[in-house]
Amino acid sequence: MKQFDDRDRAVLHRIIRARRDIRHFRPDPIPSEALTRILEAAHYAPSVGFKQPWNFILIRSKEIRKQIKGLFEEANREELEKLSEDERLDLYRSLKLEGIMEAPLNLAVTCDRDRDAPFQLGQGQMPEMDLYSTCLAVQNLWLSARTEGIGVGWVSILDPEKTAQVLKIPDHVRLVAYLCIGYPVEFRDRPMLEEAGWKERLNLSDLVFEDGWGDKNEG
Amino acid sequence: MKQFDDRDRAVLHRIIRARRDIRHFRPDPIPSEALTRILEAAHYAPSVGFKQPWNFILIRSKEIRKQIKGLFEEANREELEKLSEDERLDLYRSLKLEGIMEAPLNLAVTCDRDRDAPFQLGQGQMPEMDLYSTCLAVQNLWLSARTEGIGVGWVSILDPEKTAQVLKIPDHVRLVAYLCIGYPVEFRDRPMLEEAGWKERLNLSDLVFEDGWGDKNEG
Repeated sequence: MKQFDDRDRAVLHRIIRARRDIRHFRPDPIPSEALTRILEAAHYAPSVGFKQPWNFILIRSKEIRKQIKGLFEEANREELEKLSEDERLDLYRSLKLEGIMEAPLNLAVTCDRDRDAPFQLGQGQMPEMDLYSTCLAVQNLWLSARTEGIGVGWVSILDPEKTAQVLKIPDHVRLVAYLCIGYPVEFRDRPMLEEAGWKERLNLSDLVFEDGWGDKNEG
Repeated sequence: MKQFDDRDRAVLHRIIRARRDIRHFRPDPIPSEALTRILEAAHYAPSVGFKQPWNFILIRSKEIRKQIKGLFEEANREELEKLSEDERLDLYRSLKLEGIMEAPLNLAVTCDRDRDAPFQLGQGQMPEMDLYSTCLAVQNLWLSARTEGIGVGWVSILDPEKTAQVLKIPDHVRLVAYLCIGYPVEFRDRPMLEEAGWKERLNLSDLVFEDGWGDKNEG
């Protein structure tokens, strides 16, 4: 049984706290050994019924990325409209929310809903479990990238169906994460939205309950 | 900008590969400092719009865990019925799929769908993003627990609505993960389902495509 010591534990916490959602990338390509390590980290994530429901679509084509960027702009116009009466409109407009064209690599992480069908262990009551497993893989990937000095940015301002169409993703497969990957201009100390004054980090102790929602028996 | 070296990177990969889904627990309680570190790791996960949509319900009450265990048994009977004609029935029956009563701590991780409403940055096109963020927190927690020598097991064979009712979770909050947490009898080398012959680990290279689903331009 492998054990970890205080130093190992501290390393993990440093990685977790140094990870950022990156939108400003340098053009340098990602070495293939680093990319392999990052994908392996994802692949060793837990999955419901050991389903390993994920696929990874590496997107280097400028043509395809241009189409995705167009989908982002379309979707972001809708978001701007929602904020047209909101005092945060200018702040929102100032935020850089993706790095699709600058990042040397885009990565779509998908979930194959049919894998292992018809009996999908652990999904009978919670059919979304395979989507959740795919997210666990994304977090492994994100942390692993950070140790390579590589940044990851998750772009969610995209119509998932149109994006899936561009990537020829079949109907039984769900796009879970569209990621921009590359060496960042910098890893900032705090999340961009915190620095920009969009939102503060919540107090963890306010979020912890005991034995039932809202109960703070203290512990 | 914090940098990580080869040694740090290797530590992360060791943690990722040593993490297991645990169902056999020892009764020893979890020290509060370790629990705090684990929850902090979760809280430092990325979240859409920096929403931090999670809450953590620590469940130590035996009475409540007994109710949850009853829900597991009810749900698992349904699963067994689905397999009644399947050659894997006996294998499935032999699997231990939860450690609700043995683990010293159960933890429900939830997602508050209303947090930051009405304008939820990054969720306009993909409303499920906050659920996904909550999963990222679970993976941080899982890895962090592993460095403490603490095991985590995700129980998904539970009716989520009935479970939410037992935990008094309000309608606008979704139960994402029900976890059993404690010191394991052992951390095995491979996933339990792999060892039991339920399913093998897939070949990563089969899961990687280039520029579109199914394309293997090699890279």
